Amino acid sequence: MQDKSFLMIPGPTPVPESVLVELARHPIGHRSKEFSDIFMSCIEDLKWLGKTKNSDVFIYTASGTGAMEAAIANSLSPGDKVLSLVIGVFGKRFSQIAQTFGANVEIISAEPGKVIAPNTLEQRLAEDKNKEIKIVTVTHSETSTGAANDLEKMGKIVKAHGALLIVDAVTSLGCMNLEIDNWGLDIVISGSQKGFMIPPGLSFIYVSQKAWDFYKRSKCPKFYWDFGKQKKSLDEQTTPFTPNVSFICSLKKAFEMMKNEGLENLIKRHDRLKNRLRAGLKELGLNLLTEDKDASAAITAIYPPEGVSVPDIRAAYKKDWDITVANGQDTLKDKIFRVGHLGFVSDRDIEMTLTVTEKVIKKLSANNLQLTAGKK
Amino acid sequence: MQDKSFLMIPGPTPVPESVLVELARHPIGHRSKEFSDIFMSCIEDLKWLGKTKNSDVFIYTASGTGAMEAAIANSLSPGDKVLSLVIGVFGKRFSQIAQTFGANVEIISAEPGKVIAPNTLEQRLAEDKNKEIKIVTVTHSETSTGAANDLEKMGKIVKAHGALLIVDAVTSLGCMNLEIDNWGLDIVISGSQKGFMIPPGLSFIYVSQKAWDFYKRSKCPKFYWDFGKQKKSLDEQTTPFTPNVSFICSLKKAFEMMKNEGLENLIKRHDRLKNRLRAGLKELGLNLLTEDKDASAAITAIYPPEGVSVPDIRAAYKKDWDITVANGQDTLKDKIFRVGHLGFVSDRDIEMTLTVTEKVIKKLSANNLQLTAGKK
Repeated sequence: MQDKSFLMIPGPTPVPESVLVELARHPIGHRSKEFSDIFMSCIEDLKWLGKTKNSDVFIYTASGTGAMEAAIANSLSPGDKVLSLVIGVFGKRFSQIAQTFGANVEIISAEPGKVIAPNTLEQRLAEDKNKEIKIVTVTHSETSTGAANDLEKMGKIVKAHGALLIVDAVTSLGCMNLEIDNWGLDIVISGSQKGFMIPPGLSFIYVSQKAWDFYKRSKCPKFYWDFGKQKKSLDEQTTPFTPNVSFICSLKKAFEMMKNEGLENLIKRHDRLKNRLRAGLKELGLNLLTEDKDASAAITAIYPPEGVSVPDIRAAYKKDWDITVANGQDTLKDKIFRVGHLGFVSDRDIEMTLTVTEKVIKKLSANNLQLTAGKK
Repeated sequence: MQDKSFLMIPGPTPVPESVLVELARHPIGHRSKEFSDIFMSCIEDLKWLGKTKNSDVFIYTASGTGAMEAAIANSLSPGDKVLSLVIGVFGKRFSQIAQTFGANVEIISAEPGKVIAPNTLEQRLAEDKNKEIKIVTVTHSETSTGAANDLEKMGKIVKAHGALLIVDAVTSLGCMNLEIDNWGLDIVISGSQKGFMIPPGLSFIYVSQKAWDFYKRSKCPKFYWDFGKQKKSLDEQTTPFTPNVSFICSLKKAFEMMKNEGLENLIKRHDRLKNRLRAGLKELGLNLLTEDKDASAAITAIYPPEGVSVPDIRAAYKKDWDITVANGQDTLKDKIFRVGHLGFVSDRDIEMTLTVTEKVIKKLSANNLQLTAGKK
């Protein structure tokens, strides 16, 4: 059967019909009043979602990694010391981008699935008497493991030290509570194909007043990513370069849905889906990569049952049920599989996923038993 | 009346229904075989369009300016001498990006609407005995003026000198003949919302073998734009970062249309539309910014009739006819208006535009006469 595939990967995520219909509309001119109004309404809604009144927010036509590069290029000067908190592939990516732009990078890392204890960060910053650490990068929800750092505590710790805090909120914003102003987050980036419920193609970046101070002294070259160009255009209710008008119009639709649900309800829903999925998976006897206390509300990483391979599990989901789940990345490839439950995902989807998962592992385990029996 | 607006700006351009319908499909997973096949078919079609077998081609999730930055960041080292041929806003932008990345930029410019004579370039390069000029940037079709440089001659001149030739083909590729291999073009960039007939959101970049030599010695920092990362992923039939799957699927649809029409027919059509539009506008007594011999097949810049303002003309097109035409940019703002006739534009559209233009200028000129008479 065609046209019935279902994505349960951590992006692209399912897209609501109203958003898809909006994408099929003919693009409007990007220098029109009509577009400016839509664009500025998205800017206001982004502030609402990130709970900020003090930060500027810009929309880039780029993948999330583009916004990561923008965060570094606009705040760093070559030689600056950057402390990167790495709990997976995307945390590591921030350290690589900083290195590429000439930073002196120090890494604090955790085992896959674990998070970094806020007091580990606190101790390291306390040792930095001469304030050599200029920037701290951290991942809120690590897409590659489904672990989530305690961003609230970390925000306050970094603020007390004085370094700039750059946050990867690609799979947390729109799913988990994130309070830019209250937690002292300086640069926060996110991407469209996650909690925002639209396809991949846009990224978002929040810029605090402190980040502007860093911008002023930053010596990395930038043009497309340049915050200054973004700000100048934003003040004129437009963008410096031709934006993805279709996606921005569809983003407005997605925000209408989010506002109808309400921010607290939206966060509660993601929390509920995560809890139900984790409980159900455990009942099926599956082991999860993260502990409950560290679990992201957006992604759950699951070990396959003994004797069953990750490629076989993914193939069974796809072939028998037309569901796409993700493999592990990097060192976790073929060790875990990942289920995304962010954005346009309902309680019904989680129950369906649990039912299907039970059937998938029963079938594969039975095959495996037969295979093992046959070999004896 | 709603939903009947018509874009005659140089991007976004009209989008065919089959492409819009494709955009409304649910995104597929970007690491699937299904997506890889679509992606690689677009890569092959891009090579077909640019008449190249020797260049690599990459698709960025970014506006055209992003690809311009990529071209510079992957080929330049700070201190390199760059010769920028500037015939308008977008030629100037290349010089600004090069400067931002630390180039020592020399500019040869032409008056708005004019092009740069190939022998002017030839003479300058002949003076460069010590081969200090490492990179030449040139605009094929200058979107801000509707003038088109003689890229074939320039390609051969720069090749003979040995510098790297970077070409902005944003509004020429898919509209005008462009032969990457035969003309010796090293890096060529373009954007989705032009001849490609899809909305803004993707940009394309062609990279010759010579460009790879420059890449190897380039010292500008890059991560998102890094050709090496693109190439490594392309060899695995994928992208380094989550691509805009919806747009790449719609691009495949647009290429199907282009291939059905045939490349030579597509180029002939754009040439025919340009000629008919220019002849018709002249019959209406309007003056054009460019001479026929320098005219881009994609955009025509038009002076308003005496006593009639550009904002009034644009307002009349919009209000009375629901057609959007573009203003001039930079120093040409309110001095000219621009009609885009690239991509999904038919002979019928040009006849309609001429008919409407006649009515617009008659009405405004009559208003103007009354006004002038009233003042006397």
